[in-house]
Amino acid sequence: MFNPELIEIGRRAKQAARQLAFASTESKNNALLAMAAALMDNEQEILKANKLDVQAAEEKGLKRSLVNRLSLTSASIAQISQSLKEVVALRDPVGEGEVWTRPNGLRIQQTRVPLGVVAMIYEARPNVTVDAAALCLKSGNVVILRGGSEALESNKVLASVIAKAAQERGLPSGCIQLITETSREWVQQLMKMNDYVDVIIPRGGAGLIQTVVQNATVPVIQTGTGMCHAFIDRDADYEKAIPIVINAKTQNPGVCNALETMLVDESIAEEFLPLIAEELKRHQVTIKGCPKTCAIVPFAVPAIEEDWGAEHLDLILSVKVISGLDGALDHIYQYGTKHSEIIITENYSRSQRFLREIDAAVVYVNASTRFTDGARFGFGAEIGISTQKLHARGPMGLKELTTIKYMVYGDGQIV
Amino acid sequence: MFNPELIEIGRRAKQAARQLAFASTESKNNALLAMAAALMDNEQEILKANKLDVQAAEEKGLKRSLVNRLSLTSASIAQISQSLKEVVALRDPVGEGEVWTRPNGLRIQQTRVPLGVVAMIYEARPNVTVDAAALCLKSGNVVILRGGSEALESNKVLASVIAKAAQERGLPSGCIQLITETSREWVQQLMKMNDYVDVIIPRGGAGLIQTVVQNATVPVIQTGTGMCHAFIDRDADYEKAIPIVINAKTQNPGVCNALETMLVDESIAEEFLPLIAEELKRHQVTIKGCPKTCAIVPFAVPAIEEDWGAEHLDLILSVKVISGLDGALDHIYQYGTKHSEIIITENYSRSQRFLREIDAAVVYVNASTRFTDGARFGFGAEIGISTQKLHARGPMGLKELTTIKYMVYGDGQIV
Repeated sequence: MFNPELIEIGRRAKQAARQLAFASTESKNNALLAMAAALMDNEQEILKANKLDVQAAEEKGLKRSLVNRLSLTSASIAQISQSLKEVVALRDPVGEGEVWTRPNGLRIQQTRVPLGVVAMIYEARPNVTVDAAALCLKSGNVVILRGGSEALESNKVLASVIAKAAQERGLPSGCIQLITETSREWVQQLMKMNDYVDVIIPRGGAGLIQTVVQNATVPVIQTGTGMCHAFIDRDADYEKAIPIVINAKTQNPGVCNALETMLVDESIAEEFLPLIAEELKRHQVTIKGCPKTCAIVPFAVPAIEEDWGAEHLDLILSVKVISGLDGALDHIYQYGTKHSEIIITENYSRSQRFLREIDAAVVYVNASTRFTDGARFGFGAEIGISTQKLHARGPMGLKELTTIKYMVYGDGQIV
Repeated sequence: MFNPELIEIGRRAKQAARQLAFASTESKNNALLAMAAALMDNEQEILKANKLDVQAAEEKGLKRSLVNRLSLTSASIAQISQSLKEVVALRDPVGEGEVWTRPNGLRIQQTRVPLGVVAMIYEARPNVTVDAAALCLKSGNVVILRGGSEALESNKVLASVIAKAAQERGLPSGCIQLITETSREWVQQLMKMNDYVDVIIPRGGAGLIQTVVQNATVPVIQTGTGMCHAFIDRDADYEKAIPIVINAKTQNPGVCNALETMLVDESIAEEFLPLIAEELKRHQVTIKGCPKTCAIVPFAVPAIEEDWGAEHLDLILSVKVISGLDGALDHIYQYGTKHSEIIITENYSRSQRFLREIDAAVVYVNASTRFTDGARFGFGAEIGISTQKLHARGPMGLKELTTIKYMVYGDGQIV
């Protein structure tokens, strides 16, 4: 049933995982430093491979933004190399834990251990190849990488350079492997290789993530889709509301923690909407408004039903006038993707109700959704942002790449 | 695609979850006490329904052990009622958490919240209906119960009695629902209702669990299969080894934390095997031995390859003579199900290697695998024992029925 080459990748991964799980932090850090140096040493080769990907993408007529994501430069390689050094500085969660003693004297030690074999399925950005490998390695996990076909040549060189460096520093061969076969069939099989893969993390668009969720039998950590809302309460401080909405919408519109819909309490709509609309216009943001919004903002485009559920990932903001906090809670309940939601208010009780009643990974009072990020949360780095509830929720750092093991110390106890 | 009645169950569950998530611990405890009282008040009705199930099971010629699991008595109903009161005493994890402040003043509060809607798919024991409902309710989760068809009449009465009691104490209707349709098609659909169900927990035999893992698109917590080993090291203290092996094998052979295989270091086989074999015989345990074991123990039955991977769940123990710790690690790596494993030794370094290198939920030195249990770990109760690595591993208590939510307190912060 499974392709024998894929089985061989799985077998090597599992073999490597058995050793990597108890590699010391020191040996993992040495490997990361060697990987960082190797990237710099092989800059020319990486750039050459990347050029092939970029040329092919341009010939295929890929969108400019996609080609940009794909492109590497001397500066971006230096940055990727630097990010490896930052992973060295992060605390290794493996071996941390807690301990308690039962009345019968049994000592139960709950200890963090690596998950084992992590499969990453991702799209265009070649830097994910290195970032994911580094975070997995630091947390003692073997990684199987399957990047987008557009970045294949770049990924091949990147993965081979870092895998070689890790192996030269004594880590098991097979701890970083790239799948170079780009057929869909291999990915379909990879998602079902429960005997070889402990967890799959898809990173990319909604289509990719849905395919993995629908087809995987290996446990999945769902990342991604962010249909983020800001609710402007009738007691909002406009001097906070306007900068936050502009920041959340425009600072980087192509990412999952960008704002997609603004909900405005009807009692302040006539006062607030002209102010924010002017600022949005100044930032080249198109407003897709409900009928009430369009009546107040002459340059708003009428929204269609799809706009309320659309992750625009662009300089577009859906805007709706709603009936107070309850209206906002209902709207977000219906259209939200449980990623990040904001209330802007000076009212204590409504801020607390919003925090409590919104079911999302991150709920904000008076701050931008753009903070939903491992580094900005203080985790140092992130492997993705989980929008599911099992295992991890919100920004996932090194700790979320581990599981626990109970080690029980007895001296003859029986039941 | 989905059956409209099933959708209606899902819709009611989701609606109830939205309210139950922030019910106070006090109101949940009041409901649990009312449920405990209602079970006692409706004892006759429950016994009557249970009699129907037991009769049907006997007519179908079900195994005695299965019929026993199915049967309720006045005493067992009192025990189930009592177990609800014990859940009242457990600490509610909802709302617990930690908080930190970022350099920009953002206060990030990581708070435990319920998972939402939990679907339990389980087999014969009707007490699971009440236990699962109680643990879900206490942790703020709505439960959709789908028990085995053999216990249907009992489950109907039990679920209806406790659901009514909870509702009378003001909890949302729909917070405990039983699926009374026993067709496989409904279960198949339930496993794919990602819009309504947050997590599925299957409890039962390997067949049930594999069906759920293979077919669910809803995240699954895999429980169960325990192919547990004891390795008798050459420095084992026999006065610990013998009671532990006997306890782990015979105290309750039908459960997942019972011992299934004993591995004996070849250097002590001739000395130790006759001693333990005599004790096993005295406890009516059949030994299925490797050729070396059979040469030493005259009454051992030759093991076949399947015995090394068999969860006997009976008074049968597979026994193999192996070559030291490395032989044990390799054997467990090949045949283990990552549940619970023991080393019996007085040797420090080998005990540490075993703890470190065995990849299982619980790894013991000199204690019985029968301790792998929520109550015995000190969690007060358990919803199951996870053998997977995502979200929960080992005994799962109330905390494992929750996820986290980040509440972020800002005063205008932008990126």
